[in-house]
Amino acid sequence: MSLLVVGSLALDSVETPFGKRDDVLGGSATYFSAAASLLAKVSVVGVVGDDFPLGELDFLRKRGVELDGLEKVAGKTFRWKGRYGFDLNAAETLDTQLNVFEHFSPRLGPAARKADRIFLGNIDPELQMRVLDQVERPRLVCADTMNYWISSKRAQLLALLPRVDVLMVNDGEVRQLAGESNVMKAAHAAQRMGAKAVVVKRGEYGALLVAGEHSFYAPAFPLADVRDPTGAGDTFAGGFLGLLDRLDRTDAGALCQATVMGSTVASFTVERFSLDRLRDLTLAEVRLRFDAFRQLVHFDELPDHIG
Amino acid sequence: MSLLVVGSLALDSVETPFGKRDDVLGGSATYFSAAASLLAKVSVVGVVGDDFPLGELDFLRKRGVELDGLEKVAGKTFRWKGRYGFDLNAAETLDTQLNVFEHFSPRLGPAARKADRIFLGNIDPELQMRVLDQVERPRLVCADTMNYWISSKRAQLLALLPRVDVLMVNDGEVRQLAGESNVMKAAHAAQRMGAKAVVVKRGEYGALLVAGEHSFYAPAFPLADVRDPTGAGDTFAGGFLGLLDRLDRTDAGALCQATVMGSTVASFTVERFSLDRLRDLTLAEVRLRFDAFRQLVHFDELPDHIG
Repeated sequence: MSLLVVGSLALDSVETPFGKRDDVLGGSATYFSAAASLLAKVSVVGVVGDDFPLGELDFLRKRGVELDGLEKVAGKTFRWKGRYGFDLNAAETLDTQLNVFEHFSPRLGPAARKADRIFLGNIDPELQMRVLDQVERPRLVCADTMNYWISSKRAQLLALLPRVDVLMVNDGEVRQLAGESNVMKAAHAAQRMGAKAVVVKRGEYGALLVAGEHSFYAPAFPLADVRDPTGAGDTFAGGFLGLLDRLDRTDAGALCQATVMGSTVASFTVERFSLDRLRDLTLAEVRLRFDAFRQLVHFDELPDHIG
Repeated sequence: MSLLVVGSLALDSVETPFGKRDDVLGGSATYFSAAASLLAKVSVVGVVGDDFPLGELDFLRKRGVELDGLEKVAGKTFRWKGRYGFDLNAAETLDTQLNVFEHFSPRLGPAARKADRIFLGNIDPELQMRVLDQVERPRLVCADTMNYWISSKRAQLLALLPRVDVLMVNDGEVRQLAGESNVMKAAHAAQRMGAKAVVVKRGEYGALLVAGEHSFYAPAFPLADVRDPTGAGDTFAGGFLGLLDRLDRTDAGALCQATVMGSTVASFTVERFSLDRLRDLTLAEVRLRFDAFRQLVHFDELPDHIG
């Protein structure tokens, strides 16, 4: 089994009420592979500039992440600068510099083309399509997107959706895509557009999975210490796809477990800045918190005499 | 077993993106007793003016709700006017007329004084205390409050909390009470102020229960049709206390079931305006949706070989 992620590697500058970091490791492919590699074999396709501190990725290599698909080109790495207030659900973007990412066109090597499961990070839907045109026979395709593509590349996104098994977006994105304020109706509309299943990420409020007729809700793990929500969505995707690849299943039961695994891994990410908590995170720690999730949502049936 | 609710009976004028109603039945005691009476014997203490359409409460009488504690006085009934946008989690209050509610002082009759479980609706904490001074030996006290009392009657509220078993508030209220943005930390702070347990209501995102060391999360039931969120919190409280009274239990397991029951009944309330959905709601319908909640959050354990 194997996973392929295509997305950004970035240098982030982030400020939250709990601290500030400049030019730290970030990017969707980075967060995704840090999470997914706890569970599965991951290959990365992306691009960095000649200013990128490649040594920062050593912890990924040690977890078996395949970085041959990482292009190094002349110029500066993609940079994102953002700020969060006490409402950690919404980032304010202060600056985005695409740099070498501006002319990125994903090229898959022979191994990447054979990947079983694919995560299309939040990039131009035309590039996402170009990835799908290069892969041989993926068993599951999961795609993220954002408000910018939903408005500026709507036709391309709509062309992609029928090739997507799991569309993974946040509340605002699914509402915008569907033109519908009710999240359940919006998720069903996204299914009619072609996505087989939809995961709606709701930040500190958890995640909703709509797969066929089945609905499933995983809360976010209640944390007393949240410092930086950056990367939570991409590590959610990493835990989600990592578990599906490890289980080699895509039935509704596995999708529910994968949703909880996504929430679980994301709950570690936000406890520290950048990828700091993910660097030495172990699968044993993840497993403990996954099991605690069962306690968090468990309740007994009602006695028969009620109702 | 028996329940007592002390709170408002109101005439509400509400506008949402899905419609508009003027001078319809509302109020915390009304919503609470409509929900709780599906499960338990309820007494209401409150006040209405001589303009109140008492016939509107017939459906409560038919469910066995005791209305002897309802004072009818000269003057106009409490009126609330509010508006919701597409974000149905937050109401904008357009007008509040206390009217006969301004000089309300709860007086409990002999039966109400013997109530086993009490819901103190969102009224002045001095009045809430006056209720507790009249009851004999309640087994469980649950109290709601709001931003206005947290700032203007803080000392009185802090005096009340050690007599409260379950403080039932929303995100913003628990944050304001504790002066802490993190909801888990804020709930723990409210426990240190004296509340044995805290339920944090999060609108369409569900409800968090913190009881001793135990945390439990119930999502809101995902609905494709939400028309008017007014009264969701009070019907949550009604389902919550109604089930505890019916079960005659207050252990952590029962509190978790009660949280789900609260979410379940509230999910019906919001499907229609005012109390329209509650009038003919049956316990059998509620039971079916409670059982569907188990499906909504159920996931299997991980295989042993993972982690």
